Amino acid sequence: MRRLLRVTEPVDLGAVDPRSTPGLPDRAVTGEHRKAWARAQVGLLGAELAQQQEMLYATAQAAEAGRHAGSPAQRVLLVLQAMDSGGKDGTIKRVAGAMNPLGLHIRSFGPPTPEELRHDFLWRIRRALPPPGYVGIFNRSHYEDVLVARVASLVPEATWRARYDEINAFERDLADDGVTLVKVLLHISYAEQGTRLLARLDDPRKHWKYNPADIDARARWDDYQAAYADALGRCDTDAAPWFVVPADRKWYRDWAVAHLLHETFDTLRLGYPPAGFDVARERERLRAGGAVADGTVEVNGR
Amino acid sequence: MRRLLRVTEPVDLGAVDPRSTPGLPDRAVTGEHRKAWARAQVGLLGAELAQQQEMLYATAQAAEAGRHAGSPAQRVLLVLQAMDSGGKDGTIKRVAGAMNPLGLHIRSFGPPTPEELRHDFLWRIRRALPPPGYVGIFNRSHYEDVLVARVASLVPEATWRARYDEINAFERDLADDGVTLVKVLLHISYAEQGTRLLARLDDPRKHWKYNPADIDARARWDDYQAAYADALGRCDTDAAPWFVVPADRKWYRDWAVAHLLHETFDTLRLGYPPAGFDVARERERLRAGGAVADGTVEVNGR
Repeated sequence: MRRLLRVTEPVDLGAVDPRSTPGLPDRAVTGEHRKAWARAQVGLLGAELAQQQEMLYATAQAAEAGRHAGSPAQRVLLVLQAMDSGGKDGTIKRVAGAMNPLGLHIRSFGPPTPEELRHDFLWRIRRALPPPGYVGIFNRSHYEDVLVARVASLVPEATWRARYDEINAFERDLADDGVTLVKVLLHISYAEQGTRLLARLDDPRKHWKYNPADIDARARWDDYQAAYADALGRCDTDAAPWFVVPADRKWYRDWAVAHLLHETFDTLRLGYPPAGFDVARERERLRAGGAVADGTVEVNGR
Repeated sequence: MRRLLRVTEPVDLGAVDPRSTPGLPDRAVTGEHRKAWARAQVGLLGAELAQQQEMLYATAQAAEAGRHAGSPAQRVLLVLQAMDSGGKDGTIKRVAGAMNPLGLHIRSFGPPTPEELRHDFLWRIRRALPPPGYVGIFNRSHYEDVLVARVASLVPEATWRARYDEINAFERDLADDGVTLVKVLLHISYAEQGTRLLARLDDPRKHWKYNPADIDARARWDDYQAAYADALGRCDTDAAPWFVVPADRKWYRDWAVAHLLHETFDTLRLGYPPAGFDVARERERLRAGGAVADGTVEVNGR
């Protein structure tokens, strides 16, 4: 999936069908049950992601305790970008929801606060990075500073144009510092956005998700698509690759993002760290304290 | 469950059987399947918790947008305390894992850093509070400052003795500020701790969780139990109640904590906030933009 969904240059988002399902196995692509199949796969992938996440966390803990010298401060950072209603929240709920919340570091970026505006655009991003061993998720990111900042003319053109290089330098530094970046554009169609926004209006339980300003951004759809194309084209690097996930079908979107994460973990060749203590001696100490049942230990949920 | 598990005074932890299952319905208490029953219930409760969490989040979002004047900055804060291997991580994985990770604010407190030691013991706690609309979870907390700080004599007795009042004042301020506190002691037996620590030694995938210093704390078991009893007795208030959850059985522990959270949400009388805009007009604007299918809107996972 990392190869299949990697953005290609020159970037042409119009050529990517938001309803397509690249990589979906044939047996699932045909037939009525592909949605159920994909959902079940996300559950299975989720269990594996949770274990990969635990190995990442355990390795970082051991490194911090000085047991496992030389290991870098590894962490994974999933950057999610999309148009409004593109499915960022839903992806986090479904994919991150399958992992252990204890090891997640999720940050959402809205319009910058007055304090954030007093600093460089990357200031708030640096403060939101996941600690070693954590899986970070950015719900929007520094890319807003070359997207809405450009389309809504929040800064002069020279300012946002300079940011592509700044972002590339920043992300190269992150990679050197042990951060494995996975940048994903959830790619929806104009029609699908309309349908989703209308659904929010039709359901009082979803009114809180609706913002009249979303319509203003929708009116600038083509400008946003052009801004996305430039951002992806200028900032797709091997150290911090961009992926385009067709996202009109929610079940495909979740399946694809879970796969991207899974493959990304695989590249890290994770394992459980060795004990930093004498296991036999600790067992002795524990038994010396008494009150430990002999024989088979059965722990889970007696 | 809030009534049943609330700590009673004088606090006598020795009188609470860590293998007991208070509140478990009769049909589940007898029979072989109570474990499976409880696990399934946690799944069902989890779905309801996720919806309650969404209403909490939605209400806070609307309040922030100024649509819903007068509502306080509501948030829920679950404080988890336990002896080593008492099940804090497992509870978070199972109970918080059923909720939406996007609305969780989980913080773990280890030994204070040099910077934290330069401040009042509540300084790092204040910085870790959940934002409005979030469900916070503290994996250990400010109570360590009257537990390990006392048993291991990290501070003079006069210092930790003064902290009970400081904690009560602090938690009263939190309650006034819209924080609904749920403080839970996961109560395990000495024998169960021994079994669990041994299991960690027996499984190389769990070595990273084992810390030889845990045995030192285990040797002071009675002192810790006395420190817990004082902390719960001195700091159980209506604004910030303490609950004791028998935790030798993991399935009961998860079920009980999920119930406590669910009942706590119920006391908040949550609902979805009203729209802060003209729904009909927004529907017009959306249709004027075209590309919206007429008729029934079907959104989820076509």
